[in-house]
Amino acid sequence: MASSSCSTSMLHRGSFNSKQIKNCNKELTFNHSSFCCKSLDHCKSLSATTDIKPSRLLLLNEKSMKWKQTPKFSLKNSVQCRALEIENKPSFTIGRKFQLGDVIEAQQFDRDTLSAIFDVAREMEKIEKNSPGSQILKGYIMATLFYEPSTRTRLSFESAMKRLGGEVLTTENAREFSSAAKGETLEDSIRTVEGYSDIIVMRHFESGSAKRAAATANIPIINAGDGPGQHPTQALLDVYTIEREIGKLDGIKVGLVGDLANGRTVRSLAYLLAKYQDVKIYFVSPEVVKMKDDIKEYLTSKGAEWEETSDLMEVASKCDVLYQTRIQRERFGERIDLYEEARGKYIMDRDILRVMQKHAVVMHPLPRLDEITVDVDADPRAAYFRQAKNGLYIRMALLKLLLVGW
Amino acid sequence: MASSSCSTSMLHRGSFNSKQIKNCNKELTFNHSSFCCKSLDHCKSLSATTDIKPSRLLLLNEKSMKWKQTPKFSLKNSVQCRALEIENKPSFTIGRKFQLGDVIEAQQFDRDTLSAIFDVAREMEKIEKNSPGSQILKGYIMATLFYEPSTRTRLSFESAMKRLGGEVLTTENAREFSSAAKGETLEDSIRTVEGYSDIIVMRHFESGSAKRAAATANIPIINAGDGPGQHPTQALLDVYTIEREIGKLDGIKVGLVGDLANGRTVRSLAYLLAKYQDVKIYFVSPEVVKMKDDIKEYLTSKGAEWEETSDLMEVASKCDVLYQTRIQRERFGERIDLYEEARGKYIMDRDILRVMQKHAVVMHPLPRLDEITVDVDADPRAAYFRQAKNGLYIRMALLKLLLVGW
Amino acid sequence: MASSSCSTSMLHRGSFNSKQIKNCNKELTFNHSSFCCKSLDHCKSLSATTDIKPSRLLLLNEKSMKWKQTPKFSLKNSVQCRALEIENKPSFTIGRKFQLGDVIEAQQFDRDTLSAIFDVAREMEKIEKNSPGSQILKGYIMATLFYEPSTRTRLSFESAMKRLGGEVLTTENAREFSSAAKGETLEDSIRTVEGYSDIIVMRHFESGSAKRAAATANIPIINAGDGPGQHPTQALLDVYTIEREIGKLDGIKVGLVGDLANGRTVRSLAYLLAKYQDVKIYFVSPEVVKMKDDIKEYLTSKGAEWEETSDLMEVASKCDVLYQTRIQRERFGERIDLYEEARGKYIMDRDILRVMQKHAVVMHPLPRLDEITVDVDADPRAAYFRQAKNGLYIRMALLKLLLVGW
Repeated sequence: MASSSCSTSMLHRGSFNSKQIKNCNKELTFNHSSFCCKSLDHCKSLSATTDIKPSRLLLLNEKSMKWKQTPKFSLKNSVQCRALEIENKPSFTIGRKFQLGDVIEAQQFDRDTLSAIFDVAREMEKIEKNSPGSQILKGYIMATLFYEPSTRTRLSFESAMKRLGGEVLTTENAREFSSAAKGETLEDSIRTVEGYSDIIVMRHFESGSAKRAAATANIPIINAGDGPGQHPTQALLDVYTIEREIGKLDGIKVGLVGDLANGRTVRSLAYLLAKYQDVKIYFVSPEVVKMKDDIKEYLTSKGAEWEETSDLMEVASKCDVLYQTRIQRERFGERIDLYEEARGKYIMDRDILRVMQKHAVVMHPLPRLDEITVDVDADPRAAYFRQAKNGLYIRMALLKLLLVGW
Repeated sequence: MASSSCSTSMLHRGSFNSKQIKNCNKELTFNHSSFCCKSLDHCKSLSATTDIKPSRLLLLNEKSMKWKQTPKFSLKNSVQCRALEIENKPSFTIGRKFQLGDVIEAQQFDRDTLSAIFDVAREMEKIEKNSPGSQILKGYIMATLFYEPSTRTRLSFESAMKRLGGEVLTTENAREFSSAAKGETLEDSIRTVEGYSDIIVMRHFESGSAKRAAATANIPIINAGDGPGQHPTQALLDVYTIEREIGKLDGIKVGLVGDLANGRTVRSLAYLLAKYQDVKIYFVSPEVVKMKDDIKEYLTSKGAEWEETSDLMEVASKCDVLYQTRIQRERFGERIDLYEEARGKYIMDRDILRVMQKHAVVMHPLPRLDEITVDVDADPRAAYFRQAKNGLYIRMALLKLLLVGW
Repeated sequence: MASSSCSTSMLHRGSFNSKQIKNCNKELTFNHSSFCCKSLDHCKSLSATTDIKPSRLLLLNEKSMKWKQTPKFSLKNSVQCRALEIENKPSFTIGRKFQLGDVIEAQQFDRDTLSAIFDVAREMEKIEKNSPGSQILKGYIMATLFYEPSTRTRLSFESAMKRLGGEVLTTENAREFSSAAKGETLEDSIRTVEGYSDIIVMRHFESGSAKRAAATANIPIINAGDGPGQHPTQALLDVYTIEREIGKLDGIKVGLVGDLANGRTVRSLAYLLAKYQDVKIYFVSPEVVKMKDDIKEYLTSKGAEWEETSDLMEVASKCDVLYQTRIQRERFGERIDLYEEARGKYIMDRDILRVMQKHAVVMHPLPRLDEITVDVDADPRAAYFRQAKNGLYIRMALLKLLLVGW
């Protein structure tokens, strides 16, 4: 009955409207009310205490639909609702399952998941350019729980949510979250904030805190960086940018330049690139900040070729992608001499552009200091601002997938 | 004419849409334009200089409808509009007046007002769960003017406003409100901010500041805590939680545990409970932070039974509600020895649960440190996270009542 | 085809809906897709490298419509779309061009532009009072990039955007913008933020930074104050307030009182008043903070009369507008004696009101300390809070003009 009412309304609308799922679900709620838990929180504690990973999306839909019920019914319901969405996205395989529950670390993504996310991200580009005022996430609230400030990342997520019609609750300095200051655990803070929102984007100064939050929360958690740990959405937007700019991921040659020892970004990128065929990676860095062995061994184990060199010019002439990073002074402590030596060593300027191939691009996670000279910006191959913009599309895609699914 | 056009459109819509009031009102504006003040501010200064408390709601509707006119017309109009809403809420008595103008202190609420607010709060629970994207407060702006940070309270109010389709202006650190820093009075700041918003939620470090703000403002003020003074919405959500969890308020037995001397929360709660019949309150606290005599005397004067005891186990076995609070170190100054002794004295753990009745619940205003052990959380009787969530419903209810009335 | 579909829908709606422009434009996008650039960013770099000032509005519409195309087509399109709006605003001359691209400094406005902005501001007053929930800017995102806090100005802009249905991204303390802290240039920050928003309102501590931002950005920039430099929206709301309160600008007598040497506000105001006929300005200030010669010479060159006097009473009796300002202690450094002498010299109190004409008004940019006594507030001639409110209307007008044009 729900599905029929939905498919009918389908005929009357061009673009998919997430409220329809909620309407179906609402009717279902009444139909199956006898199966609904009496208390939302009993449901939650239940689902929280059982391993629900295999059907996490279902649980998510359940949540995103604000509908509490027993698993077998959420299965039934989610199938109906996915079907609904497929009517609108014939490009997607019917019944395809998308097992994304939280976004915690780059390692969680396989090739299929990446290409699925990238499909949605491309769809998001169209929405952002041609249908301002999209209402796909109308009625959803995202909480940005930032325990350390990161304006760039925060704005990117908040813009993504608002571009899809969603609302945002902001805590730019959750470290002084009165409760946290008073000694409340992260778990208790999450339990409180999840009562006010539908998804939490968290940045924290402690490695592993995103995992802890996800283990507690009954709504999706997106890791927006946890200290020295992970920053998975940056890794996703980097790979997405390479595919958008070069047109492929298999068989590409990528030069990673700068601080490879401490750069969270380049480590995750190398990790994800290893999932593709015939990838060749060049490491170009000052002696003191060379890429660590764990990544090198991982690449070898995956059959990805890699080479360490100090000849930036030669790498520039061969690569599809030159990925430059900032040498972070704070990593050198007292040894300012080493810092000065390191940062001056590999600068990207017009001389580098001259030897690069026409189709190749320069990338950078930003912010940049002088490791890429300003006169490079005007060259079409300077992709770093497009790369930053791609962060918006990737985050729009993740928010859509986690909140309303396909 | 306005009313007819409204009732007609009524037939075509399931849920009440606050914009209709605005439309009626808009037409009325034209009809009676000759009666409208020339300048909004002359109106304001007028209403500000006359005691408008008896008809404060009318004035509020007038304001919330952004419609400036002479009192006798606002009466006529508000009756029509209340009528409209009653069509949609048959549960409410026709013509019932709701005299809530500002939310300043727990003392302002009588039993009827409380039960009226709780009726709306239950309605809000349905809205939050089943109709995401509610537009009841579409077009209204709430300013959160926080002179000291309180992320938990701020997020709860902002979520409430957004769940009803309203917009929010945030000042998380109004203490550094450039103007305040330059020596501007609270009154001047309020006069400025009220020009940008429809309702102000204020948190301040000075007791009594909310009253001062309300005396100045021509839009509703909600006190979100003024220093050692009041935090009325916390008191409301506590009583609401007891009614939701236990199913009644008359005849309940409540144990207040922990810091009863300084706890703003337990003092307000005791105050409100005294409004109900045959209530029994147990005070369980370390010697140094006992409940003060003013509350004890007030309870006695209202015929509420109370008892002071040190036997938490026995209280736990008798109570419907065990309300635990945090012992705040900052209250003990140098006497850390006293603090350590006090905080260790009454911990709630699984032993307490064992003696509690099946239907009883454990409450806590949060944040909690170790005064409730984590292994209690999984028990269905642990109500403190549901209690935090109830804060959302109470604040949704207050925002609806203050901005669009019934 | 676009225009027809729009004009039809026109018949069915009372108020103008900006989404229609976007819909037209969307269809046009498909019609002319062959003319669209492949990459948004190539477009941007292109437009950024060519002098597009003459057709800046067109470029803006192009941008605000999220539609990338070759100039000649944006001309065609913008004409159609302006036509659409004219259907709804017959008061505006058909085909009239509005060449406002960024709002950087008071000097950029001529009489015509000022009166055009004021026309729209009056329209905004109606919208704010009678049609809450306006959707004129639905689907647009404004980023408030504040490198120094200014809650009053920020709230005013954010309220303006929300009153028109737009969304806001806030950075109240962009100075600690992690990237800026790490040494990122303002230009790079702007390039990133413009990817997440449709317009940037910037406050900065450095004079000239707004110009730099506008030179970089491909979306409109509004200067919300750049250090000792400009604060154009304050100047606009001051002139708008005089016109609203006195009913004219030609032939008015204005007394500028207080710190005329450092007051950014009074300097810009004097500058703009010089554009009107037969204006007479009185400078009343302590010796140490007299109006500087550059402004005096400018007024003389424009044929505006001015006079320097120490007799506030006489000025008060002659003026249409008494504009009081705060003596800023920080300007006096060590010389607290001079500060104390200066601030006490010209206080506005009820004695001043007694000699002022019935139609005259007292203005103040706020915040005020004791340079205007509180007992003046109740007098209808105290215009400073209405003046603050006018800031909202002016900012609504600018946002509408910059994002959707007439």
